[in-house]
Amino acid sequence: MLKEAIYHRPKNNFAYAYDEKTLHIRLRTKKHDVENVSLIHGDPYDWEDNSWKTVRKEMSLTASDDLFDYWFVEIKPPFRRLRYGFELTDGTEKLVYTEKGFFDEAPFNEIQNYFCFPFLNAIDVFQAPHWVKDTVWYQIFPERFANGNKDNDPEGALEWGSEEPKPSNFFGGDFEGVIEHLDYLVELGVSGIYFTPIFKAYSNHKYDTIDYMEIDPQFGDRETFKRLVQKCHEKGIRVMLDAVFNHSGYYFPQFQDVLEKGKNSAYTDWFHLSGFPIEKEPSPNYDTFAFEPNMPKLNTENPEVKQYLLDVATYWIKEFDIDGWRLDVANEVDHQFWRDFRRAVKEIKPETYILGEIWHDSMPWLQGDQFDAVMNYPFTIAALDYIAKDEISAKDFANQMSNVFQSYPENVNEVAFNLLGSHDTPRVLTLCNDQKEKAKLLYLLQLSFGGTPCIYYGDEIGMTGGGDPGCRKCMVWDETQQDLDLKSYMQKLIQLRKTEPAFGNEGNLRFIEANCETNHLIYSKSHEDGIILIVINNTEQPVDVTIPGNFNEKEIENLWTDEKVETNNGSLTVNLDIYGFSVLKVS
Amino acid sequence: MLKEAIYHRPKNNFAYAYDEKTLHIRLRTKKHDVENVSLIHGDPYDWEDNSWKTVRKEMSLTASDDLFDYWFVEIKPPFRRLRYGFELTDGTEKLVYTEKGFFDEAPFNEIQNYFCFPFLNAIDVFQAPHWVKDTVWYQIFPERFANGNKDNDPEGALEWGSEEPKPSNFFGGDFEGVIEHLDYLVELGVSGIYFTPIFKAYSNHKYDTIDYMEIDPQFGDRETFKRLVQKCHEKGIRVMLDAVFNHSGYYFPQFQDVLEKGKNSAYTDWFHLSGFPIEKEPSPNYDTFAFEPNMPKLNTENPEVKQYLLDVATYWIKEFDIDGWRLDVANEVDHQFWRDFRRAVKEIKPETYILGEIWHDSMPWLQGDQFDAVMNYPFTIAALDYIAKDEISAKDFANQMSNVFQSYPENVNEVAFNLLGSHDTPRVLTLCNDQKEKAKLLYLLQLSFGGTPCIYYGDEIGMTGGGDPGCRKCMVWDETQQDLDLKSYMQKLIQLRKTEPAFGNEGNLRFIEANCETNHLIYSKSHEDGIILIVINNTEQPVDVTIPGNFNEKEIENLWTDEKVETNNGSLTVNLDIYGFSVLKVS
Repeated sequence: MLKEAIYHRPKNNFAYAYDEKTLHIRLRTKKHDVENVSLIHGDPYDWEDNSWKTVRKEMSLTASDDLFDYWFVEIKPPFRRLRYGFELTDGTEKLVYTEKGFFDEAPFNEIQNYFCFPFLNAIDVFQAPHWVKDTVWYQIFPERFANGNKDNDPEGALEWGSEEPKPSNFFGGDFEGVIEHLDYLVELGVSGIYFTPIFKAYSNHKYDTIDYMEIDPQFGDRETFKRLVQKCHEKGIRVMLDAVFNHSGYYFPQFQDVLEKGKNSAYTDWFHLSGFPIEKEPSPNYDTFAFEPNMPKLNTENPEVKQYLLDVATYWIKEFDIDGWRLDVANEVDHQFWRDFRRAVKEIKPETYILGEIWHDSMPWLQGDQFDAVMNYPFTIAALDYIAKDEISAKDFANQMSNVFQSYPENVNEVAFNLLGSHDTPRVLTLCNDQKEKAKLLYLLQLSFGGTPCIYYGDEIGMTGGGDPGCRKCMVWDETQQDLDLKSYMQKLIQLRKTEPAFGNEGNLRFIEANCETNHLIYSKSHEDGIILIVINNTEQPVDVTIPGNFNEKEIENLWTDEKVETNNGSLTVNLDIYGFSVLKVS
Repeated sequence: MLKEAIYHRPKNNFAYAYDEKTLHIRLRTKKHDVENVSLIHGDPYDWEDNSWKTVRKEMSLTASDDLFDYWFVEIKPPFRRLRYGFELTDGTEKLVYTEKGFFDEAPFNEIQNYFCFPFLNAIDVFQAPHWVKDTVWYQIFPERFANGNKDNDPEGALEWGSEEPKPSNFFGGDFEGVIEHLDYLVELGVSGIYFTPIFKAYSNHKYDTIDYMEIDPQFGDRETFKRLVQKCHEKGIRVMLDAVFNHSGYYFPQFQDVLEKGKNSAYTDWFHLSGFPIEKEPSPNYDTFAFEPNMPKLNTENPEVKQYLLDVATYWIKEFDIDGWRLDVANEVDHQFWRDFRRAVKEIKPETYILGEIWHDSMPWLQGDQFDAVMNYPFTIAALDYIAKDEISAKDFANQMSNVFQSYPENVNEVAFNLLGSHDTPRVLTLCNDQKEKAKLLYLLQLSFGGTPCIYYGDEIGMTGGGDPGCRKCMVWDETQQDLDLKSYMQKLIQLRKTEPAFGNEGNLRFIEANCETNHLIYSKSHEDGIILIVINNTEQPVDVTIPGNFNEKEIENLWTDEKVETNNGSLTVNLDIYGFSVLKVS
């Protein structure tokens, strides 16, 4: 067995509390290298006890990626304390792995050798709001969703959909427009709206905040927003806003004050300034978001700034009863700020969802003290690379996603925010070169995956467009221009998430087969009620896929056609069209 | 190159902020497998730039253990943001390692592949109080250090040193006794005292607190303790107290109230009770420390309990100006409590030292939001196993310590609390089978290591004793009974820490040679002023050790004898006695 490949380090994704009584323990080994792994375990204060020396708990091989196998076991220590190690065998050799390295036999004379989960304190358990797991999100870019009130249109607003979107044109989308179309969202099956920024700002995207306490007048007034949230709640839809706390806009009064008064401004410590007078050219002498002089980075370490932003965070919950905050550029703001943010927000509404925008490995933000979830870009990238771009194989996709799943605790994975596109990226259909069948495979993937899916407005009716600003077209409301077939396909997928626990977040995902040559993918979602099998054919040829396993005496139902499926003496083969798929329920 | 052995994951010990401008990046590879490692790096928002594609920063091989090599580089990104990967070569093959796995060539088309340190926020930098690095600690068990005031002796107190220590006998040690001997500590070179508990309690060890706001009357009153702290400060000695917040004593009034009133007590939520009436037998129906019914575990998640304990923590700082808290059984208390503890304590005295008692891997507590340090038991165990018990070789010792050093950031290692023994363990000399020369080697190791050393009272004069209670004998004040040779040896080591920056915490430790056969150990402490070489012979034979390297044109001084050392054409050999050592300064 390859010692160098064996890895475990508590806590994070390797040893964590799943709930107030349950620990999850994982171990990584070289792929196909180890046959059996057992957990050696005991109470830290009872290790003289014999059970410690004789009783093992077997671990299961739950996932693999290109290099590694991952082993898993769940354990409920009676006193919520655990010392543990691993016993590995490959059929011929035995190896014991502990915090102090490797041994031939378990070193029972010295408990200090073992890994330790010292105490399962309930307050430290990672816990996202209970409603998030079952939510289907819908992202609205408010300027472009619907114009319900012409009176608040910004000056020079164009007729709805009359032009292509540009970085600086306006079409007058607003809250009244959203309210008018809430039933559309209900019909689609949406249960949460994520709004990109709604606060007073200069641009059409509103990421350059002028006033965090004011709604941008082009969207409506406070009363309208309050009514919007109320109506959403009545219809079972949660509301999440976008918090741009990393930086302000150039016209943020505090920054304008610094521009005007220089050193004498009361707000010099609100930003990261490196000289006076403040200059934008040739390069800004203050920290910015990226290299964008119009977005000065806020000094969130300054207690005044922190208090101001925390007041913002709590104000919109207290006054308008919003249900979540999506945190823009969350990774560049200090951890201490986010800890205080969580505390402030959860104190007034414990069920508020906190979602960070982080594109890379996010474990440091997901330890229970900061975010409930991050935007799952690794999923986005891998899914698009596999299906839309044909840049990676089914095998690569499965490997990458297994790796991501294994990088986080299970309770974190359950609430990952799975998006396929946003206001920053080309639309799904466009990335699929307008091949609708490919887009359908992507939505099947997204809506049958662990985590909570988010649909970008208009994707469900086949809207197209390249990267910003192309993806920000006005929503098409003329039904004759909508792809109603795609829409009803999405409805059906969302419906399945609600009616079939295994299809949605209750199902435990395992990759069954990911074939490099035929490029098909089989994965299962298992649940106590039964197993759902999803088979995807991402090729231009029809394919017959035989699913590994014996299905003798199983009832198999095709959830898409509601037909019973017969096996051939227990062998199950599905015939898939070009870019076809199958969703089978085995019970 | 063995891909399965290559490991990096930000942040923790692999990518962390060393100070407000500097990042440290580390990489692990299979031992002797890789020849060169370079950091591919660039600003996350400037990756179109060519430098990202061409400029590399070379990493150095800084440590190895039994299985792995560890590579290191320091970098100061101009905008405090970094995307990075690793380019590895073994002479023939090239490999690029990123967050998304391995590539043959750096994948510059997709920045999302790379590891990310999104922003170096100053407030998130791990920072222990500046004074800790240079402190030499002395642990006092107050009941047994010195009896300065007979009037406060507990009933039945025995004459000083007249009997062996027992779990329940008393000798009357007190604060007045400590005050009387402060000059003794100054003469020894001590700059910090760690007191085991001083609060009102039942036992002689005082870990079973009755009242956290009261000094135990057998030690003195508030005025005396205040005077003690003042006098310590006048003499340049810091004072650290022991906070036993995981559990109270059985006679803690709140627990007594629950015992008495059962369900109707106002304190039922102060503990973890599983039934009424409260029972100690056959096993307690409440959570305890270990299985000790006299130490009920406190419910630190209860805001009332938390507030009470935080009030305790701040009270002793505000009223008595203490400098540190050592946290008993720190690993079993919730992380959220410790975050609030840090906040409360640092708010009133930012330079307070927070030291957790954790025996196992402690990374989750050392991320800057909880502790400044933990008690470095891995050092204790490895050093004793190597020198006192001859259970592991010099090589094993070097491997184990390298592994520990690599498990934490450098700024964490600099303030690790390095102890060789305590009130819970047999004394060093006893563990060495009374071989003083071995004990001397241990003290040399301890006092020349990175981290801050702590001497257990009386070890410096050759006191002996087995585990609790044997190690808790009354301090010997009769100089004719003290080992004055050992004491002056310790004085000299402590002095070296102060006069030679490289010998103490300013020196960067590297193992040069750890020989399994002859069992000798060579390590260097490097600093801009020069290098100190320490050579240890842990055998019963004299040995001639040739130090690797060419010392031509170097000045070499034996810091122990103050003699100049000559090389033989650049080759440097030292002749060590049985259990001998050498401390050489090369400049």
